[in-house]
Amino acid sequence: MATRPITFLSDYGYDDEFAGLCRAVIAGIAPEANVIDLTHGIRRHAVAEGAAVLAKTLPYTPAGVHLAVVDPGVGSPRRAVAVRVADDDRVLVGPDNGLLWPAIERLGGGLAAADVSVSPFRLEPVSATFHGRDLFAPVAARLAAGATLEDAGEAIDAASLVAPEASAPVVEEGHVRAHVVYVDRYGNAALDVNHSMLPGTGLRLGRRAWVGAGGITLDAVYSVTFSDVSPGQLILYEDSYRSLALAVNRGSAAEVLDLSAGVEVTLRPV
Amino acid sequence: MATRPITFLSDYGYDDEFAGLCRAVIAGIAPEANVIDLTHGIRRHAVAEGAAVLAKTLPYTPAGVHLAVVDPGVGSPRRAVAVRVADDDRVLVGPDNGLLWPAIERLGGGLAAADVSVSPFRLEPVSATFHGRDLFAPVAARLAAGATLEDAGEAIDAASLVAPEASAPVVEEGHVRAHVVYVDRYGNAALDVNHSMLPGTGLRLGRRAWVGAGGITLDAVYSVTFSDVSPGQLILYEDSYRSLALAVNRGSAAEVLDLSAGVEVTLRPV
Amino acid sequence: MATRPITFLSDYGYDDEFAGLCRAVIAGIAPEANVIDLTHGIRRHAVAEGAAVLAKTLPYTPAGVHLAVVDPGVGSPRRAVAVRVADDDRVLVGPDNGLLWPAIERLGGGLAAADVSVSPFRLEPVSATFHGRDLFAPVAARLAAGATLEDAGEAIDAASLVAPEASAPVVEEGHVRAHVVYVDRYGNAALDVNHSMLPGTGLRLGRRAWVGAGGITLDAVYSVTFSDVSPGQLILYEDSYRSLALAVNRGSAAEVLDLSAGVEVTLRPV
Repeated sequence: MATRPITFLSDYGYDDEFAGLCRAVIAGIAPEANVIDLTHGIRRHAVAEGAAVLAKTLPYTPAGVHLAVVDPGVGSPRRAVAVRVADDDRVLVGPDNGLLWPAIERLGGGLAAADVSVSPFRLEPVSATFHGRDLFAPVAARLAAGATLEDAGEAIDAASLVAPEASAPVVEEGHVRAHVVYVDRYGNAALDVNHSMLPGTGLRLGRRAWVGAGGITLDAVYSVTFSDVSPGQLILYEDSYRSLALAVNRGSAAEVLDLSAGVEVTLRPV
Repeated sequence: MATRPITFLSDYGYDDEFAGLCRAVIAGIAPEANVIDLTHGIRRHAVAEGAAVLAKTLPYTPAGVHLAVVDPGVGSPRRAVAVRVADDDRVLVGPDNGLLWPAIERLGGGLAAADVSVSPFRLEPVSATFHGRDLFAPVAARLAAGATLEDAGEAIDAASLVAPEASAPVVEEGHVRAHVVYVDRYGNAALDVNHSMLPGTGLRLGRRAWVGAGGITLDAVYSVTFSDVSPGQLILYEDSYRSLALAVNRGSAAEVLDLSAGVEVTLRPV
Repeated sequence: MATRPITFLSDYGYDDEFAGLCRAVIAGIAPEANVIDLTHGIRRHAVAEGAAVLAKTLPYTPAGVHLAVVDPGVGSPRRAVAVRVADDDRVLVGPDNGLLWPAIERLGGGLAAADVSVSPFRLEPVSATFHGRDLFAPVAARLAAGATLEDAGEAIDAASLVAPEASAPVVEEGHVRAHVVYVDRYGNAALDVNHSMLPGTGLRLGRRAWVGAGGITLDAVYSVTFSDVSPGQLILYEDSYRSLALAVNRGSAAEVLDLSAGVEVTLRPV
C-alpha cells in the first residue's frame, strides 16, 4: 500500500520549531508521506477554534491521515486517540479534548477508535510537554505508512470521544441570535448559522439586514460576494464553507463590529 | 509527462487555513506535484506588492506552473486567467488584475492565454469568495498534471491582460526621484530604479549620497553590502534582485526614514 | 544514491519570499529532495538563538543535509561552510558565525569541513546580500543530490570553525544562577541548566522553588508538566529537550517574569 498523505493542523504557530519538528519526525518514519500543513495559526490553546477549522477544511482534503494538535491539557490524563471515520477510510489523530469531534461528525462519524496514549509507535522517552513530536506525529506517520488502528493502540468505543460544548443559535421569526465562530485574517466573521436555517426569519438574499453586536448596530446587505457592495459597506453572506458570515468590502467586519470568537450577533430583517 | 512543480504566492497569510487548503486541493488532484510556497505574506489585497515579488522571484524558480492569488475583486467580473510565457513553457495562473503582468513581462511576454473563470477544472459549487480553493488551485493542479491551456479555459488574447499602474521614477543629472516598491522584514527598502539607470546622475558606487524621504534627510554610502558600513549607518546598494535599495547595517532603513511601499525617495550625489 | 532530505532553519520570517525562494532554488537543482522547514521564525540576526534551536532539533530529524541561515554578516569576510559530523553522515551548511557549532557538538563533532564561499555550486552572479539563495541553498541541494564535501569547496580544519560565546550558569548548594536561552510562543522559557546539574543544590522534583528574575520573585513548583499545577501557577520543569524551563499553566512565564533570551534567573530551594 502506498504511503497516504497527512494533513496537519495545530496551534504551534510559526515562530517556533514545533510544527517543523513534527514534520521532521514524520519524514524520518514515512519519508514518502506528503505532509500538507493546513495551518499552524490556530490561536494558542483554542480547541473550539481548531475544531471548527478542522471540520470545515477536511472535506476538501485528500483522504489519508489527519493530524491535529491543540492540546492545552498535554501531560494530563486526557486521552490521545486515532479515529477512523466512515468517509473514505480517513483516520484522525490528536488529543481527545473535543478538537477532533466536529470533523468526525462532518465526515460521517467514527467507525473505530484507538487510545494511542501508550502507543508502541511513540518516541521513547515521551516528554511530558511535547506530545506532537513524541506521540502524535509518529503515530500519524506509521498510520500513513500502512499501520492499522489495532497496531497503533488499544481499541476504544468511538462514541466515547469527548464532544466540545457547541454554541446554540436562536433562530426565530424576525430575529436570529448567532455567535461568531471564527474571524479570519481579512476580518471576515463566520457565524454559527447557515443559509438553510433562515426561511421563516424574514432574512432574505438581496434584502437589507440589521446587524447588532455589543452596543454597535449596522445595516448590511444580505448578498453573495464582497463586490456586491461599495468598499466600506457591510455584507451578510454565505461564506465559502456555507456558513453565514459578515464582511466589509475591502475592510474588516471584525474591526467595525468589534467581533471575535464567541461574540453574540443579532440579525433582523430591515 | 511528469507532473510539474507548482510555485504558490498569495496574501492568504499564515493565521488561517486558506493557503493550506489550496495545497490540499492540489494534493488531491496532482498528488505528485511539488508545491513550493514562495510566500503567503503579501500584505492583504496588495496587488502591486504581490506583482513585484512575483516578478522578481519567478526567474529563480524551476519551470512549471506559477499560482498567484491576491484578489481583492474576487466575485466581481474580473477574469481568472492562465498564461503561457515565452520562457521555458511556464504557465502563470491567477486573477487578471495586474498581479501576473510584471512577471509575464519579465519572463518574455505572454505567448497564449485562457480565461479560466468557468474552467471545467473548477470545484463545483464554486464559492463567491474563495476562488483560490475552488478555481485557481484546481486549474493549477490540472495544468501541472499535464492539461493544456485549451483544456483549462477559453482562449483569449495574451495582450488583453490587465497591466498594473507602474510608478515612474525621474532620473536626471544630480537628482533621482524614485519610489519604494517593497519593504522587507529587515526594513530594507527596494526602489523602482536600478544601477544601470544611474550614469549621468552623478551617483557613483563608493561615493556618498544624499537621501531624502518625507521630511527626513540622511547621508548614505553607495556601496555593495551591509557590512561595508558601520552598524547603524545607511547604505544605498544594489539588492539581490538588482534593484537599488536602502538599508541600515544591523538596523532598519524603513524605520529610520519612515518608508513604506509608494513613498517617494530623492537621491542626490553629495 | 537517493536524494537525501534537507532540513532548513533561518531568520527569514514568513512575510517575505526569502525562505520560499531558497526552496525554489533547491527544487530546481534537486527536484526529489524532501525539504523540511524547521522554522524560519528565528528572531532577526539572532545567531545564538538559531544555534540553540538547531542544536536541540537536529537529533530528531532524519539524517541528511541541514541548511541553516542566520547571517547578519552576509557580504563580510565570514566564511560559508559545509561540515560533516560523526553522527549518521549528516552535513550542515551555513555561515561560519557560531550558528552551526552547538549542533555540530551535539551530533558528535565535525569530521570534515569545507569552505564553500566560492563553491562551484553557487549561482552566478552571487549577490552581496542574499547568500541563502545564491550560495547556501544550491550547495545544500547539490550535497543532498550526492555531491561530496570535496566537490562543494576547499577543505578546512573542522576545528577552526567559529564557536559562539556560551552563557555560564552558576550551580551551587542552595543557589542556581541560570540564563534564559529561548522563549517560545507559549511564553515558556528554557534555561541554560538541566536536571542532571541539580543534585547538591537542594532543588528537588516535587518540591517548591524560589524563582527570581529582574526585581520579580515568585514561588514555583518543580514538577513534570503544566497540568501538575493550577492554571496561572508557575512551574519549573524539564522541557521536551531536557533543559530546565519555566512555564505558567495556561499562561505565560515570560510575561509574568518579564523574561527574554539572556535574562538571568535565580533558583533556590524553598
